[in-house]
Amino acid sequence: MNQKRINSVLEQMQKRGIDHLIISDPSSIDYLIDYQNQPGERMYVLLLSLDGSHTLFLNNLFYLDKELDLDIVWYSDTDDYVQILADHLQDANCIGVDKFWPAKFLLTLMSLINDESCFELGSICVDYVRMKKDEEEQKLMIKASQINDLAVDQMIELVGLGKYSEKEVSEKLADIYKSLGSDDNSFLPIVAYGKNCADNHHVGDAAMVKAGDSIIIDMGCLYHGYCSDMTRTVFYKEVSDEHRRVYELVKKANEAAEAMIKPGVKLCDIDKCARDIIKEGGFVAEFNHRLGHFIGRDVHEYGDVSANFDLEVEEGMVFSIEPGVYIQGDFGVRIEDLVLVTKDGCKVLNSYSKDLKIVG
Amino acid sequence: MNQKRINSVLEQMQKRGIDHLIISDPSSIDYLIDYQNQPGERMYVLLLSLDGSHTLFLNNLFYLDKELDLDIVWYSDTDDYVQILADHLQDANCIGVDKFWPAKFLLTLMSLINDESCFELGSICVDYVRMKKDEEEQKLMIKASQINDLAVDQMIELVGLGKYSEKEVSEKLADIYKSLGSDDNSFLPIVAYGKNCADNHHVGDAAMVKAGDSIIIDMGCLYHGYCSDMTRTVFYKEVSDEHRRVYELVKKANEAAEAMIKPGVKLCDIDKCARDIIKEGGFVAEFNHRLGHFIGRDVHEYGDVSANFDLEVEEGMVFSIEPGVYIQGDFGVRIEDLVLVTKDGCKVLNSYSKDLKIVG
Repeated sequence: MNQKRINSVLEQMQKRGIDHLIISDPSSIDYLIDYQNQPGERMYVLLLSLDGSHTLFLNNLFYLDKELDLDIVWYSDTDDYVQILADHLQDANCIGVDKFWPAKFLLTLMSLINDESCFELGSICVDYVRMKKDEEEQKLMIKASQINDLAVDQMIELVGLGKYSEKEVSEKLADIYKSLGSDDNSFLPIVAYGKNCADNHHVGDAAMVKAGDSIIIDMGCLYHGYCSDMTRTVFYKEVSDEHRRVYELVKKANEAAEAMIKPGVKLCDIDKCARDIIKEGGFVAEFNHRLGHFIGRDVHEYGDVSANFDLEVEEGMVFSIEPGVYIQGDFGVRIEDLVLVTKDGCKVLNSYSKDLKIVG
Repeated sequence: MNQKRINSVLEQMQKRGIDHLIISDPSSIDYLIDYQNQPGERMYVLLLSLDGSHTLFLNNLFYLDKELDLDIVWYSDTDDYVQILADHLQDANCIGVDKFWPAKFLLTLMSLINDESCFELGSICVDYVRMKKDEEEQKLMIKASQINDLAVDQMIELVGLGKYSEKEVSEKLADIYKSLGSDDNSFLPIVAYGKNCADNHHVGDAAMVKAGDSIIIDMGCLYHGYCSDMTRTVFYKEVSDEHRRVYELVKKANEAAEAMIKPGVKLCDIDKCARDIIKEGGFVAEFNHRLGHFIGRDVHEYGDVSANFDLEVEEGMVFSIEPGVYIQGDFGVRIEDLVLVTKDGCKVLNSYSKDLKIVG
């Protein structure tokens, strides 16, 4: 158990009037009690309670390879396991529920609990703590991004050869990461050529690169359980004036947003800064996603850099800054770094150059 | 749209008094409307309604590569998208909810809908239809298991060499599958030696095989979107009398269960048949999981062969039969086939021999 982190979560529960918190996200459970598990479709719950009694509900198929300093309730597939959980909640006033908890458990639990209890989304209590990385986490994230900087250089060299399809280049990345000391990809990398760049979540296919194509490479690795994530856009052989103009616009938005980050600034204002620059350049609908997302143990963690989030930036937060412009049927540009908020500014975790680059 | 499948789902909704059904499982949506999407953390819903109006809710970051014959509602990350869904449900009496739908959407929707509506688990309406594979699906599943039979032979040969760790053998499987025409693993394979065999979900590590070890190989491939899944247990160099006795017991349970499968037999009775045989051999807690699970587009689909499921077997169902005995600190045996229920019996989809085999 990481008592310091658990205490921070309990503080959040107290503040929000939640007396019992159902945590089901394996990343959050590992973060709090240092135990990794892949529950698949089976119920997996860490129940934190304001009274200090904490319980882990485990299917007897799960493998516990260490002693854990909390109550453990084992159940089998044929037990009425949601009832077993409900038995621990009969005195609850307000039950906080993990945002990822599937309806099959939640609706069943709701039918078993007395009417006076309320259910509300409660994972913010953990997410808010996870947003701010402690010193050990920061070190791992810095290292994960250093590996990413080295790996993107090799990836750009590969696409510059002009002889590999999007899919072929993507498939080489895992080995590059391993050779650099990372454990694996943190997500399926995106390698897109030309008009495929306009699809934000393009899955690399057999497309080959052509002169004048933009090339988007969006990639990240895992290092000791922590993620990196960056995007660079380069051009193959040549770049048109209009494409160059868009590239410089996106770069300007990326750099302006990063320059304003410091404790106290609101996430929505960082998004607005980048979005306004792109709007002045003539693009609104063409920048069709949030400016950034939080990241850590998961590549997308709770927290957006978007108009929806008026939370103030705090020291230790790590998130992406990734403005983009996507012109359907033509091309796309995205430039993404991770940033770590410091005492009076931010450290940009990616140092690979953002100057316009023509390869091949 | 696959109107035949949708009509079958609507029939189930009618029968269960559900007038609107929220389907969020990407496998189920693909099954019904032939559209693949990986929504990540974003809301992705196919709303089926008894009145025949069907709507797909899509984030504008999702990529739609074809025309779909139903209403589409696009939303952006900054829209109040659960409210947009709620607007389509204000006249609902009973809203069926996908078992996988995360609490972050469900609890939000519940707070937006008038009190007279009820919410209940509704994915059984789709799951029940998906349980019975149509002719095209059966062909793909037969082929996926044929590939698995060929691949397990190569895997057993590899472990017999005695020079690869569990992890090294596991990592070779994806390439074996590709060479046999499959797309990939359908799940992370389990390769376990000796006492690691007693952990049902062991992740292959650096362990090397020793004389007398049992070796469990649990593996499956994907073929045109459909899964295979089988387990064989072999022994390295030698086998003790007690291990042989356990092996023959598990084999007997596997074969007896398979022999009784035909339309009309209850799933719980098939489980009981295998469990009783293993009990007679002296093991109860050592067989600590359900006898089998349904399978198709997902490796674990709705439906168990367990004491919990008294559903009667029907033609076209495909599920696993996988009894096991696990002796902590010593060894384990599991023998698993997939079966396809036919008009008057079942076709066992795996033909790789179950006779006790000593390798190395």
